[in-house]
Amino acid sequence: MKYDFKYHLPVEVHFKKGILKEILEYTNRLNMSAILILTDEEISKKKWFEKMREDLCKDSISVDVCPYVVCEPTDQSINAIAEICMDCSYDGIIGIGGGSCLDSAKAVNILLSSKANNIEDYLVPNTTLAEKKIPMILIPTTAGTGAEITRGTVLYDQQHKIKRGFSSGGCFADIALIDPLVAKTLKKEQIAASGVDALSHALESYLVNDKNEICRLFSISALKLISMNLEKLYQNNQNEEAAENMFLASLLATMSFATGVGLTFSHHISDVLGPTYKIPHGFASVFTLVETIKQLRSKDKKIDEKMKNIETAIGNSCIEQTLIEMFENLQVPHFTEYTDPINELELDSLYNKINSSDYRGVALENRELMIVLRKCLQKEKP
Amino acid sequence: MKYDFKYHLPVEVHFKKGILKEILEYTNRLNMSAILILTDEEISKKKWFEKMREDLCKDSISVDVCPYVVCEPTDQSINAIAEICMDCSYDGIIGIGGGSCLDSAKAVNILLSSKANNIEDYLVPNTTLAEKKIPMILIPTTAGTGAEITRGTVLYDQQHKIKRGFSSGGCFADIALIDPLVAKTLKKEQIAASGVDALSHALESYLVNDKNEICRLFSISALKLISMNLEKLYQNNQNEEAAENMFLASLLATMSFATGVGLTFSHHISDVLGPTYKIPHGFASVFTLVETIKQLRSKDKKIDEKMKNIETAIGNSCIEQTLIEMFENLQVPHFTEYTDPINELELDSLYNKINSSDYRGVALENRELMIVLRKCLQKEKP
Repeated sequence: MKYDFKYHLPVEVHFKKGILKEILEYTNRLNMSAILILTDEEISKKKWFEKMREDLCKDSISVDVCPYVVCEPTDQSINAIAEICMDCSYDGIIGIGGGSCLDSAKAVNILLSSKANNIEDYLVPNTTLAEKKIPMILIPTTAGTGAEITRGTVLYDQQHKIKRGFSSGGCFADIALIDPLVAKTLKKEQIAASGVDALSHALESYLVNDKNEICRLFSISALKLISMNLEKLYQNNQNEEAAENMFLASLLATMSFATGVGLTFSHHISDVLGPTYKIPHGFASVFTLVETIKQLRSKDKKIDEKMKNIETAIGNSCIEQTLIEMFENLQVPHFTEYTDPINELELDSLYNKINSSDYRGVALENRELMIVLRKCLQKEKP
Repeated sequence: MKYDFKYHLPVEVHFKKGILKEILEYTNRLNMSAILILTDEEISKKKWFEKMREDLCKDSISVDVCPYVVCEPTDQSINAIAEICMDCSYDGIIGIGGGSCLDSAKAVNILLSSKANNIEDYLVPNTTLAEKKIPMILIPTTAGTGAEITRGTVLYDQQHKIKRGFSSGGCFADIALIDPLVAKTLKKEQIAASGVDALSHALESYLVNDKNEICRLFSISALKLISMNLEKLYQNNQNEEAAENMFLASLLATMSFATGVGLTFSHHISDVLGPTYKIPHGFASVFTLVETIKQLRSKDKKIDEKMKNIETAIGNSCIEQTLIEMFENLQVPHFTEYTDPINELELDSLYNKINSSDYRGVALENRELMIVLRKCLQKEKP
């Protein structure tokens, strides 16, 4: 058996420089007349955002901007937004921003659609999710999240102190608009953190995947584009070609993991590290990446072959060294810039939390996971 | 501007050898309990088809088989099938077969869903199509059509003597099941005709397309797979690996042309030649392919560059020569095996018909089209 896969991506994706200037075309197509825009404070203050809002208002559409999305949204932050918005009858939701904004838009949409009060009810495993009833457009402002095309949302459950999420056809956007020009107002740290998130999506999904050639095409192409463009965009956020290529890479990387094969190791670890130590998701996703690859290579010849394919595609002979140099150029922080090196007690606690989540595909054995954590989290920056 | 594209494929695609044995899982998921299977006589007599029908009946599902799909379906053939089936209340339609069966299933579904009598009403340009209301599973039995994932259907309008079609979100299948094992009962001619159809989908969409990197990935990968597997499958329909790769290639080629970029030249010509001279669609699509490529190369440097990309991908130095040899090995018939070489009067008539259809993307100028037609249709097989 060589191929065995499912491929499903019902979102209508539109990709073009400057497409945000045409936003009315898309809201009209979905018959939106009373729109809720979900975003964060930083984005709500950008000039291009204000221009987009004005364009929408021109056509006698009512537009409310809710700029209260927080980084790493929690169950409580979602409930609070939904409470404010519950009594308005919106017939359209636009989520715009990084992963936090897009995931929040999905969760708020589910609550508003079902007139429910608590997102916690949906975080219980195997719960049937209410259907999304309000048409939704998602617009990513970073080249990395991919949340604009995924069927899920991830939130931080404050009570249980873990990241939890739900996944359902109801979370799919109707339309995703991708406008690489928004990169022109991104900060260096945002470009780096989102870019390495896309990188780990592409790399992990390629390593997990043996039987879905479509996803393999996506991930290997994403890796090529990232290796050629991420550092360029980081150096100069006005580089339109690099921005186009990074937004495309992010899309491809997400198409790879989101249409069937899923993610593994490094993303599981980041879901525990990120919220615990307040580390941006993208950075948390790559702290352990290089050491994890070394562990995987040592135990599995198939992984070694896959690494060679990647190395051929990106034109470099050692992926670990390429990653180390890239992370240095992107000033990816070391773990100990967020917290002291962790002690054995903390390590055990992290280890248990990571181990309690479901791995899919290529996984680290317990012993190997412990080695990776020790190497990456217990030492100061070399 | 480098990228500018839309990508939309809402069909849930499942690809696996032997997946037809699990068909109940998919009909149950769509809550089908009274199923209409649309197919042709040849398929309805195959053992694997009978096994599938038995599997469906096991679960106290009622199953009617309608084996009356004709090759190159017409408006009248669709109306006739719909009339027979109109009074039964089906809650599921399965289309299984080549392009004719899958396109017929879409058209019959639209008629049954709207309780209308005449498919002609929908063939009028700019007509709003009735929504498809009956859940639909499409199963291709040839590696070439791609109709299982497209949003349109093409019929032969007997009154106006042209191929016409309609395109709408309502034509999308809910689920496409792709089982390469069905290739084991294909005839040589079917493998050749459908395989070269996939080839022209991939080649034309690559030449048309400059701004959709996702589609370019699909088409170039499809071309690689076709160049390596089509002749193997033609030589031996029991070669499971070649079958898997050809079904994947057909899927990728269709994802390339159907998700945005469309087709051009050779397919437009085939839509006139095919029904006029009763030539299988796939063969009609490639009669003029080599001469068309020569014409395009001579006038456009960009086409020449693209040809080099293809030649690099498939590892051959001259695509025209590769095609000529491949068609010879596949015993693709010469045009004059279907009819006498055509005279000037017929040529004019064909020319006018082809010219009246809308070209998209790379096109032949009138003079060039005439050269191609003369070279390909006025001479006996060399």
